Amino acid sequence: MTTQQLISEINRKKSFLCIGLDVDLDKVPVHLLDSEDPIFEFNKAIIDATHHLAVAYKPNTAFYEAYGLKGWKSLEKTIAYINKNHPNIFTIADAKRGDIGNTSARYAKAFFEDLNFDSITVAPYMGKDSVEPFLSFNGKHTILLALTSNDGAYDFQTRMIDGTEVYKEVLKTSITWKNAHNLMYVVGATKAEYLAEIRKFVPNSFLLVPGVGAQGGSLPEVCRFGMNKDVGLLVNSSRGIIYASREEDFAEAAADAAKTLQQQMQAILDAR
Amino acid sequence: MTTQQLISEINRKKSFLCIGLDVDLDKVPVHLLDSEDPIFEFNKAIIDATHHLAVAYKPNTAFYEAYGLKGWKSLEKTIAYINKNHPNIFTIADAKRGDIGNTSARYAKAFFEDLNFDSITVAPYMGKDSVEPFLSFNGKHTILLALTSNDGAYDFQTRMIDGTEVYKEVLKTSITWKNAHNLMYVVGATKAEYLAEIRKFVPNSFLLVPGVGAQGGSLPEVCRFGMNKDVGLLVNSSRGIIYASREEDFAEAAADAAKTLQQQMQAILDAR
Repeated sequence: MTTQQLISEINRKKSFLCIGLDVDLDKVPVHLLDSEDPIFEFNKAIIDATHHLAVAYKPNTAFYEAYGLKGWKSLEKTIAYINKNHPNIFTIADAKRGDIGNTSARYAKAFFEDLNFDSITVAPYMGKDSVEPFLSFNGKHTILLALTSNDGAYDFQTRMIDGTEVYKEVLKTSITWKNAHNLMYVVGATKAEYLAEIRKFVPNSFLLVPGVGAQGGSLPEVCRFGMNKDVGLLVNSSRGIIYASREEDFAEAAADAAKTLQQQMQAILDAR
Repeated sequence: MTTQQLISEINRKKSFLCIGLDVDLDKVPVHLLDSEDPIFEFNKAIIDATHHLAVAYKPNTAFYEAYGLKGWKSLEKTIAYINKNHPNIFTIADAKRGDIGNTSARYAKAFFEDLNFDSITVAPYMGKDSVEPFLSFNGKHTILLALTSNDGAYDFQTRMIDGTEVYKEVLKTSITWKNAHNLMYVVGATKAEYLAEIRKFVPNSFLLVPGVGAQGGSLPEVCRFGMNKDVGLLVNSSRGIIYASREEDFAEAAADAAKTLQQQMQAILDAR
């Protein structure tokens, strides 16, 4: 999926909502646990109920790996279901991978070619040659961790390198890499005021913004500081949507929660 | 496996060799490709031929994920095979994971409990709460990326934060985390002279050292700068051992290559 197609979908749906498919079997409705693949059944129901309200889905791979082979099968089925039934949805493998060059190339192949995700999150610590193998895929997007939504972000990301914060050095350096036009960035919503700083370095890039909702980030603040002329934001909510109810009405409750966010987004878009 | 058990094995085998099980089906002997699970058959043959020469095996998860469900099954079978037949071998999931707290906890469960690896490599960029969930497992080890063996290490890891290189800040900060005694560190052999600096911060920790062999690192240099009273090193070789031959004699050739390194290690240990 190209960036232009993503922008078109945002404008068409009046939404820049990303839904995090972080499935924990301890939290799904108990009636699903009898099915052959409860993780997939849960995702399918959530997707069917929310696809008109969201422009992106983001499964975090940790939640699937935690269930071993069965989990990976559920992940494969989930991405295949989205790609088949909702080809205009942007898909994000929230995998936070990164390794030396020939090894990163393996991850890129796994997520971009075999699973056919549109994008993957990647950690920057190992530098250029750990990220460029992901960037070499046309029509695919590499979402680099810049400033994350957790407290640990202050351990290294906001420390100063030669008078500049580490996360800004990540931004500055990354835009010099080959095929940097395929980069997007993770910026936590819990640090909304930082978005204005980030926009000085990457005015045109898409930002994936986790942390709205359960982690305490504010949607209006994120938009105020982070939105650009193309919107340029994918705001993620996971638990606030997918666990809105743990009863049989979970999918409708998820749709209601997604609708609430989508309407807030529409109001912000309309007011521009 | 406790650190003390690992040290005992190193002294017993006169080896601190770790063998990287990074299986690429384009490089394994063609006669294996007809088997039901060529990756596992390859690993099994390598393990059977080398387990007396090595103290650790390190599958890099990228090489397994690249083959989807089949790859994960091969990984499960490989770690189960090692744990069953060679329980005194230290196992490393080279996964370079790291995420916000509740998500890192999922990865920790997957690799420590379900797959039953002794250790996992973890990226530091997201800080304390992304690493501590791994550290909370007794008898398990978290191998934090400090200074990696690739060129991209110079993009951020060797940059200066407040007068100190980023990788040193990672070391200094990490030793303040809860259960820091469960930490080990990745330090690339291609930067052997840095090992002396690293030992100032973590004199007693084990260091996992990739980059000897194919990537150009020198074993004597690594030992000169990095060895401590307990040895404190796991030196990894992947391609130089597992692809020593691509013919039917691949396992014997791997054993020969492993033996060469083990004998160099024994000479260094005996000379202390």
